[in-house]
Amino acid sequence: MEHQRLSSGSRWRGKPIRCRAAVSRKAGEPLVLEEILVAPPMPHEVRIRIICTSLCHSDITFWKMKDFPAIFPRILGHEAVGVVESVGEDVNEVSEGDTVIPTFMPECGECVDCKSTKSHLCTKLPFKLSPFMPRHETSRFTDLNGEVLYHFLFVSSFAEYTVVDIAHVTKIDPAIPPNRACLLGCGVSTGVGAAWKTANVEKGSTVAIFGLGSIGLAVAEGARLCGATRIIGVDVNPDKFEIGKKLGLTDFVNAATCENKSASQVIIEMTGGGADYCFECVGLASLVQEAYACSRKGWGKTIVLGVDKPGSRVSLPSSDILHSGKTLMGSLFGGLKPKSDIPALINRYMDKELQLDEFVTNEVRFEDINKAFDLLIEGQCLRCVIYMSNE
Amino acid sequence: MEHQRLSSGSRWRGKPIRCRAAVSRKAGEPLVLEEILVAPPMPHEVRIRIICTSLCHSDITFWKMKDFPAIFPRILGHEAVGVVESVGEDVNEVSEGDTVIPTFMPECGECVDCKSTKSHLCTKLPFKLSPFMPRHETSRFTDLNGEVLYHFLFVSSFAEYTVVDIAHVTKIDPAIPPNRACLLGCGVSTGVGAAWKTANVEKGSTVAIFGLGSIGLAVAEGARLCGATRIIGVDVNPDKFEIGKKLGLTDFVNAATCENKSASQVIIEMTGGGADYCFECVGLASLVQEAYACSRKGWGKTIVLGVDKPGSRVSLPSSDILHSGKTLMGSLFGGLKPKSDIPALINRYMDKELQLDEFVTNEVRFEDINKAFDLLIEGQCLRCVIYMSNE
Repeated sequence: MEHQRLSSGSRWRGKPIRCRAAVSRKAGEPLVLEEILVAPPMPHEVRIRIICTSLCHSDITFWKMKDFPAIFPRILGHEAVGVVESVGEDVNEVSEGDTVIPTFMPECGECVDCKSTKSHLCTKLPFKLSPFMPRHETSRFTDLNGEVLYHFLFVSSFAEYTVVDIAHVTKIDPAIPPNRACLLGCGVSTGVGAAWKTANVEKGSTVAIFGLGSIGLAVAEGARLCGATRIIGVDVNPDKFEIGKKLGLTDFVNAATCENKSASQVIIEMTGGGADYCFECVGLASLVQEAYACSRKGWGKTIVLGVDKPGSRVSLPSSDILHSGKTLMGSLFGGLKPKSDIPALINRYMDKELQLDEFVTNEVRFEDINKAFDLLIEGQCLRCVIYMSNE
Repeated sequence: MEHQRLSSGSRWRGKPIRCRAAVSRKAGEPLVLEEILVAPPMPHEVRIRIICTSLCHSDITFWKMKDFPAIFPRILGHEAVGVVESVGEDVNEVSEGDTVIPTFMPECGECVDCKSTKSHLCTKLPFKLSPFMPRHETSRFTDLNGEVLYHFLFVSSFAEYTVVDIAHVTKIDPAIPPNRACLLGCGVSTGVGAAWKTANVEKGSTVAIFGLGSIGLAVAEGARLCGATRIIGVDVNPDKFEIGKKLGLTDFVNAATCENKSASQVIIEMTGGGADYCFECVGLASLVQEAYACSRKGWGKTIVLGVDKPGSRVSLPSSDILHSGKTLMGSLFGGLKPKSDIPALINRYMDKELQLDEFVTNEVRFEDINKAFDLLIEGQCLRCVIYMSNE
């Protein structure tokens, strides 16, 4: 397989690239490493050579899922960093050779939401679960038999090359190691952002986090950066507390051994009335209700980060809503605008404020991508970085 | 019946007062105007001569209710203004002759919540549905047979004299006409405060109000004062729009004639995506869901003011919570701290900014208090002021 030399510009500019991808051909079955064709970028699109990618739980969710919005064959992956190989027409924001993070979250920069400081939910290219490119509604991937391969979350980073809409591309400082930068494409940004932007955690406050996967631990890290003095993690696996201590966790509630009490009751007792901020990072309506129950009356905020099953609903007592002074809100991608907020997070990492190293528990070569799935499913792994091999 | 002359201090200081009260003896049956005994205030309590009181829907709710937390015989009424007749030990904040508004909402001024700018839910004397005084857990009322009469919402203003805990008493400027001041004891303050304090409505924003009773119309007035440019009222009675126009309403959605659309769909179309702030002022979980559905993605806030049936729950789609950027919150007494915020509202009324006159649609003498119930139930009345007769 051939690879471009960036110094002289892309030799494939305007042409399809033949490269390797890990294709999800059937729900729950190992990804198939195969050669595919990646079409050149259309207007407003960027073709990116992926340097490395990490595995997020949402990849596994859509890999396991049998029915719509799952669709096969598909190229999964949405936490990555890469280098711009070539750009389509009307792309002025990045050039060949730029280091970029593709994100499922768009930022067109032009719509009322992108221009507002109050919203980060782009109206022009609204986030949705689509198997295609966001603007042209077609795929850039085909296998060697000419069959279309579907996109995933507008990123599809389990390939040596991918095509991403410019609204989904953030240019970053190439000084950050790629195996740290990729984490900011989804999970860590979501958790840190939820504490920083959505909740706006106050210095000296108390935080409770339900679910200590990467996102929950990233909430702890975000809360630590905001100056929270007490950060309580709730999980059924006490090993997570040991990892979490480095990321700001001060207390642990083992939800499996609360005996006659619910986790919310334990937290209300520990805090003398509830936590100032409660984060649900699992994706279970019942846990949202638990989080809401143990948020402090008068000012408690409950922030939902977990992705629940389609059709699920959160049910809260009407009298609690009216009488408690509590707030319920969600946090998609941590409330961040990717193009302005990811570079800010990178600066904080480079300044040794934001911790990212602790999230990388495993690393594999692209050929071994199925191992990354096994590791994350086993539950001991936070983030497994997958390196595209030929660099 | 005798009445004190304030100039020489209360002649009943330290003794029971015999006076008239409208006693709710049985659920749903006309109040009985009878003589009762009002005990002197205990420590931290204030005995108040009621000048006038207005009727709120919560009075009717508890008058109709057969089971707990309803209890009989009881003295209802919780929107009033009066003059301090005498004070118990340890009361330094008010003196005999001061004009005061008693409120169901306490403000002890000492607890962490009262001292915080983030909460208005007093921790020391938390609001609850109790038939007694908040601090001593006993009643100050007996009938002439010695039977205890229960308190209501710590106010019980359907009596010529009542006893109220000092945490529930706000001293006010006596210059405001009493038949306007009484409105600030509950409904109007709740609505105006929900827009002003809880939602903090931004200038130029769009507001939708579900339910145009006094509270919903007071939300309109509050939103108008905050500078909202579009204030949409939703009700099944178009007459409410005519009244509401004076209080800032700019648009009306008749929920009874939306045909194939829900009110939320109509509002989404009218506003090109939803209202910035949605207020539920009826007390129906289904309407909270409607309000949430038509709040603007990215920044929409839904504020619940309505008192729903005990045990009711609000159910929202998990994916909407996560993906919409919307916020759900409640507003008890409009998020106001009575002792600091009621005087501020009075100043705005005296400065001809806040409109109160429009809320008073009917006036009756104390003897005719049952007419006030009929008028409010019929649905055309906003507030009926009941005048204690001997003044």
